[in-house]
This record gives sequence, C-alpha cells and structure tokens, in this order.
Amino acid sequence: MEKVRRVERMVALTKLLVDSPQELIPLNYFCDFFGIAKSTLSEDLACVKDSLQHFSLGTLETVAGASGGVRFIPYRSGERANAVLKEVQRRLEEPDRIIPGGFLYMSDILYDWHIASRLGEIIMSRFADTEPDYIMTVETKGIPLAVMVARAFNKPLVIARRDSKVTEGSSISINYVTGSSRRIQTMSLTKRAVPPQSKVLLIDDFMKAGGTANGMRELVNEMGGVVVGIGVLVATASPKPKLVDDYKALLVLNNVDEVIKQIDVEPVYDKV
Amino acid sequence: MEKVRRVERMVALTKLLVDSPQELIPLNYFCDFFGIAKSTLSEDLACVKDSLQHFSLGTLETVAGASGGVRFIPYRSGERANAVLKEVQRRLEEPDRIIPGGFLYMSDILYDWHIASRLGEIIMSRFADTEPDYIMTVETKGIPLAVMVARAFNKPLVIARRDSKVTEGSSISINYVTGSSRRIQTMSLTKRAVPPQSKVLLIDDFMKAGGTANGMRELVNEMGGVVVGIGVLVATASPKPKLVDDYKALLVLNNVDEVIKQIDVEPVYDKV
Repeated sequence: MEKVRRVERMVALTKLLVDSPQELIPLNYFCDFFGIAKSTLSEDLACVKDSLQHFSLGTLETVAGASGGVRFIPYRSGERANAVLKEVQRRLEEPDRIIPGGFLYMSDILYDWHIASRLGEIIMSRFADTEPDYIMTVETKGIPLAVMVARAFNKPLVIARRDSKVTEGSSISINYVTGSSRRIQTMSLTKRAVPPQSKVLLIDDFMKAGGTANGMRELVNEMGGVVVGIGVLVATASPKPKLVDDYKALLVLNNVDEVIKQIDVEPVYDKV
Repeated sequence: MEKVRRVERMVALTKLLVDSPQELIPLNYFCDFFGIAKSTLSEDLACVKDSLQHFSLGTLETVAGASGGVRFIPYRSGERANAVLKEVQRRLEEPDRIIPGGFLYMSDILYDWHIASRLGEIIMSRFADTEPDYIMTVETKGIPLAVMVARAFNKPLVIARRDSKVTEGSSISINYVTGSSRRIQTMSLTKRAVPPQSKVLLIDDFMKAGGTANGMRELVNEMGGVVVGIGVLVATASPKPKLVDDYKALLVLNNVDEVIKQIDVEPVYDKV
C-alpha cells in the first residue's frame, strides 16, 4: 500500500474503531491494514484515545498479550446523556401522542434508530458494571432499542417470542400474568439462545406493573441463566411497588391526562 | 475551548460524522464545537473525505446553502461486501442449523448486530437509487436487519404487526395468504406510520413463496404509499416464480438436505 499521511491514517483508524464498539481488534489487523509498525500504531492509538476523551466521545481500551488488541468504548453519560433524555421527554410530551385509554404512541421514537442508538449508549453506560453476556427483550416494540444496547455492549441479542415458531427449533415456554390487565400470556424462547450460567440484561420499552419483565426473568431462570439488570425506557410512576423492583428506567411517566391532553414525563438524569 | 492539535480535531470530526450516517449536519455545528473558522473546517472535511475514500470506508457529501451541511455516506460494496456475504454463507452452511422440516436456524446471525450492521450497509448500497422515505418490515426476526438498513439510509423504520395492539392507535389491517403454507394471516400497521405518497423499501429476513412480502406491499398500497424495492437476506431458489418478482436477495438457499445434513447457500456477489 502506498504511503499515506498520518492524519489520513488517523481518520481511517477512527472510523474502523468507532464502527465496531466494544470489539477487541488485534493490533496486527491495523498494522497490516496500514502497513505500519506496531510502535507507530501505538502512537496513533494514543492520539485517538486522547482526542476521544478530550471531547467526551468515548475511549479506547488496550488489552496486552497474544489474544489482545484494542477496542473502542462508547459512552454517553453526564450532560451528553441528559441532553438526549431531555429531547425524548420533549417529544413524549407532545399532546397528540395520547391514544384513547391513556396510552402513549411511542413507535416513532422507538423506531428512530438515531435516538435508539443514543439511548442504547446511555443504557450501556448505566449497566456497564453488570457485564452481561446477552441482551434480551420480548417482541416487538422494544427490539430496536435492544439492538442498540446490544451494539453498545457488543453482545448478542436474544428475542423472546409471544408464540413459539417452528423455525426456531425446540423452545421453552412459560405462562405469565401481565401485571396491569391480569391476563395470562405465553412467552417462549428457543433453547439455543441462552446457555446455562449466562448473565442476561433485560431491556423493554415500557413498564407498567412489571409483569412482562417478571416473565422474562422467569424464562431466563428456566434456562439456567441469571438476570443481572432490567433496563426500560419509560416506566409509569404507579402502580408502586411493581412486580420487579430492581429495574432502572430512563424516564418516568407520572401522568397522562386525557381531558386536558397533558402528558407528564420526567427524565432520570445522570448526576453532573 | 482550548486549542487542540489538528489531528485530534480530525479524530473527533470523524467520530461525529461516522456516528450519524446520512445525517446532514450543519457546518456551523462543527465550527462551534471546535471553535474554528469555516475555511479551516472545509480543509479538515476535504482531508476526512480523501481518507475515507482512499480506504474504501465511505465518503462525505457536502450540501451548499443556508440549510446545507455535510453528511457521511457509508458504503459497503465490491470486495468488502463480498467478504461479508462469504462469511454469512459459511455460517449458514453449518450442519447443525437444520431444524426438522428443512428449516434453518438463523436467529443467532440475524440478532448479531455486527453482521446485521454490515448487511444493512450492503442492502443500502444495492437500493441506494430507490431513495426510500421509510424502511418497513414485519415482526419479528427481520427487525434487527431492518433497523440497520434504516440506520444506513438514515430513514425511519416501520414495523407491521401480526396483530393490532391498542397502544398503537387506529390501524389498517389486511389478510393475506402465505405462499408456502397457504394459511390466511393478518398483518396490521398503525395509520400514523406511513403518510400517503411515501416511498417504502421492504425488508425481510427470509423469502420462500413471497406471500409475506406481497402482504406488506398490499398494506403499503392501502395506506397510499409506494413500494420502491424489496430486499431480503435469504431467498429460497424454489418455488419459482414467487408471488413477488422484483426482489433482491443477498443469498440464495438452493437446498437443505436433512438426511446427509447438507445446506447449500449461494451468495449474490457484487461485481468486482
């Protein structure tokens, strides 16, 4: 490969690292890609790391040894996280989101990959210490958010189904009672999805009484896994207590007033 | 903000652009963020663009005028696309994927955000000329892929449901016949999701007879939209013709032999 200027190499290096969050990339990969020595690469990586940290855009982590390499760790906390939450609050409080019955239309926000990817990074930052092996959700509306959490953690996604499909192979099903409407529902997961002893982080878009999260936990337990955290985008303020108490919500829905068309949503901000 | 070296600024600039594919970011945003003049920024952007193109990592597009700005356009075509498809082929041909009935277990690949994001870029590159306003899929397994296609296009995602949920507001439902099993199914979409005259790109993970894609098209037509393309990850070689003929598959499933446990998958490569 022809010689390129250092600054051009740094641009490409940044792109490749940022594109694969949390993925450990061997140093040799970059040495070969750019045709440079390891010492040169180390200088380049130090500079990329400084720059990312300087602008609060994430950091790099280097792992020494034969199976080592370098990985990009995105983070979105403090003021950058709070600005995202404030924007989501503003959109959730738009009066025409109210659906008869006091529900909120949220799909346009949930299916906006741009917001979802930022929310995924916030959830990753808040659950980083739980070190999950799998990110799990139940179909359907929470999937895009869970995809982005899985991306930020660089861990596989697991999706529980409301029915069991023949194309998934043998599966485990549980019945659970939804906390709010007291209906019995079924949730199933293919047996291949979660190996025993796995640490699983549960993700959902909305929590009212916590019945769905409770059902997901039961399913994980059935498979011999352990739930290490429950992250939801929006949780309602009431009922309280919920069927699960160890969850973290990014926003709390205090009230929906159908008569005066007013929605009261409160972000759970990072301390700054 | 304190003065930073140019190379550090370029790293941060690259990160911010790459993080928001296809999003038009005003030049002023970067001038303010880095505290630099527009002329300096223009030089920086030219260098980022050169570097991305040099390494085939994408490009930048600058739009002049008051509402102008700069956007990062990811692409993955030619050899870089073909390497991804070859890897997916290798994984799909692992013998233990066969599920009784001749189905293939694909969820681990579909729910691997790393592969999904690369496949999303390939689909975007192949459908770039269709200029869709919306990316649409039907629940459940195709959603992560569709999220990544939406990300590569920077367009909103629309997810059709197999039932109609009260939390989505008023919706349109259609009945359709699945092409392979000849069963009648229901598919529904909230009325807010697709405005009339919208150009919609359909995405699905698997196509056998094309009944589901045909149902999605009918749903889009009901809402006054237009389907501009159909992209699927894997299509079976038979039956042929299918209920839709204007689809593009990334891989073709020629045969699943349950007896000798052999799977024959063929990538549809880019010309290089």
